[in-house]
Amino acid sequence: MKKIPLESYDIVIGDASLSLQEVLRDRRYTQIAVLVDEHTSHHCLPKVKDIIPAATVIEISSGEQNKIMSVCESIWSQMASARMDRQSLLINLGGGVIGDMGGFAASCFMRGIDFIQVPTTLLAQVDASVGGKLAIDFQNYKNYIGLFCNPIAVLVDPQFLKTLPPRELRSGYAEMIKHGLIKSSTIWDRLSGMESIYDITWDDEITASIGVKRDVITEDPKELGMRKVLNFGHTIGHALESYALHTTAPLLHGEAIALGMIAESFLSKELLSLSEISLNNIVAHIKEVYHDLSLVSLDHSNEVFDYMGADKKNRGGEIRTALLQDIGQATFDIPLSKHDVERALAFTKVVMS
Amino acid sequence: MKKIPLESYDIVIGDASLSLQEVLRDRRYTQIAVLVDEHTSHHCLPKVKDIIPAATVIEISSGEQNKIMSVCESIWSQMASARMDRQSLLINLGGGVIGDMGGFAASCFMRGIDFIQVPTTLLAQVDASVGGKLAIDFQNYKNYIGLFCNPIAVLVDPQFLKTLPPRELRSGYAEMIKHGLIKSSTIWDRLSGMESIYDITWDDEITASIGVKRDVITEDPKELGMRKVLNFGHTIGHALESYALHTTAPLLHGEAIALGMIAESFLSKELLSLSEISLNNIVAHIKEVYHDLSLVSLDHSNEVFDYMGADKKNRGGEIRTALLQDIGQATFDIPLSKHDVERALAFTKVVMS
Repeated sequence: MKKIPLESYDIVIGDASLSLQEVLRDRRYTQIAVLVDEHTSHHCLPKVKDIIPAATVIEISSGEQNKIMSVCESIWSQMASARMDRQSLLINLGGGVIGDMGGFAASCFMRGIDFIQVPTTLLAQVDASVGGKLAIDFQNYKNYIGLFCNPIAVLVDPQFLKTLPPRELRSGYAEMIKHGLIKSSTIWDRLSGMESIYDITWDDEITASIGVKRDVITEDPKELGMRKVLNFGHTIGHALESYALHTTAPLLHGEAIALGMIAESFLSKELLSLSEISLNNIVAHIKEVYHDLSLVSLDHSNEVFDYMGADKKNRGGEIRTALLQDIGQATFDIPLSKHDVERALAFTKVVMS
Repeated sequence: MKKIPLESYDIVIGDASLSLQEVLRDRRYTQIAVLVDEHTSHHCLPKVKDIIPAATVIEISSGEQNKIMSVCESIWSQMASARMDRQSLLINLGGGVIGDMGGFAASCFMRGIDFIQVPTTLLAQVDASVGGKLAIDFQNYKNYIGLFCNPIAVLVDPQFLKTLPPRELRSGYAEMIKHGLIKSSTIWDRLSGMESIYDITWDDEITASIGVKRDVITEDPKELGMRKVLNFGHTIGHALESYALHTTAPLLHGEAIALGMIAESFLSKELLSLSEISLNNIVAHIKEVYHDLSLVSLDHSNEVFDYMGADKKNRGGEIRTALLQDIGQATFDIPLSKHDVERALAFTKVVMS
């Protein structure tokens, strides 16, 4: 069992059953509920159910389209029916949707109750569950309604990755690439030198990847400055994801971020000091892993640009992004013009085709 | 202009136009919106509009029945339409509904933007707008969904009280009585010695009353201990309010709390050390001010007790409340049985009839 300490809670990497037992040992709750979806109910809940035999199970349908207020209200309704109170606990067992929405639901239930994040996807393990950002989508906007609130613990069990479809695993891997690119050329070298993502020693690499994120968010918990480097690949990537959501070939989050990282690496070369060699290395590795993505969103720069304008990270309508000065070294608040975005999408289309 | 400093913001008592100007002087916002209802739009907005000429006005219908998620979603929708972003500001100009829901809306919009509370009712000025408790109602439960988040300032203008119907003024006065009873016999003596609430010097008494609340919440911002004394009169009072809401004679919050304070003062005598003389004084003053309330909810102790069980302050189903050891001295976490509640409601009925 590895522990990554944060200011007010620990991220524990290891067997979820053991770490849950340890977290609960000295705590008394009036009620415990576990939030799951149909996948984690089947694949993951059996692994921890013995530790919390009396827990109420709240099941929602999987998928980003369910990360919305009406589903959140049904969670609150079930929490109320279970007579949960301020001294109750919610355990969020699932991917980003479960963690984001369950964390939001717990943080607003009776003005906030304890919750534990047990991320079961790679994406949630290395990214979503670390940093206290909680939210649901609103209308067409991703993560528009939410808040910052820390869980009492994050329990990361790499065993859960075995239950993931390959496409989900590959989606989460994009954030690990990102952590290398923005902060650690060592991580990047190790990952990009791998023949296949199935060769990865998950315990070690997840720990390293979370370590990067921990360092960044500890410095800037509320995303006022440095934390924005975590948005590398996301300014364009989020917009691609939003656009693709309404097509017949939606992209998973990490897939969209992979395309976004190519686009923003191109801009890092054009606008900052990223070398052409580094750009080529980035393109080569991403293309190797994500060779079969739908590229249709890359043809719609107008709509993609509109989605960027609605992104909550942009100040007063101006589009700003995080870019790379070098591999392992990111900076933020770089303004992007519409022309920049058009060029970047065109480049991405060419290299990925 | 008087200032009551809190850890991260000031409560300013004085002309709202001047204090708003001062708060905004050194701040730059991409957008400003003002949340109002049909009353404050008419009576209060003109007083501050010159300071914020370009602000978007978001108007909702007044009344507790509108402190719900669907109305909150319409606020978010209008904030999105106004292209508000993380560097925007929401000013909540109104009573408790506007402050509670507007504060909640701001705190969750893009994971939290700045907001200013400009309470326009006495209830909101001495109670709701101080302490960072924000919430909306959910299903039948008051303030079930919410969080703790501080505004950047609270601007209290006693001039706004002139726009209030007498019943509203009297409702807010209940919280001033409460602040005296739980923490300051000096305040209590001054208030209970007054011939009429229209003789009150509002600037001074509001400042004194907020001072009590400030002292309590500074000590215990998250309501883990001492802050619970602020619930004096509320355990039973909230339940009476919830019950009466579904009758033909609903009680205003302060009216219900006035009844709740009689009931809980009776229990303070029965279960703790409050003297019979003090109980009689409390009953006499409350009866003088609130002589014409509907008492129908006092006949329904079963239903009222059920509402108490659903109150979010209760741990694991047990009913606990704050009671008085003496005037000016409260304690908390005193368990109540159903029989206690029945007796207290019966007593209240007798003395108020």
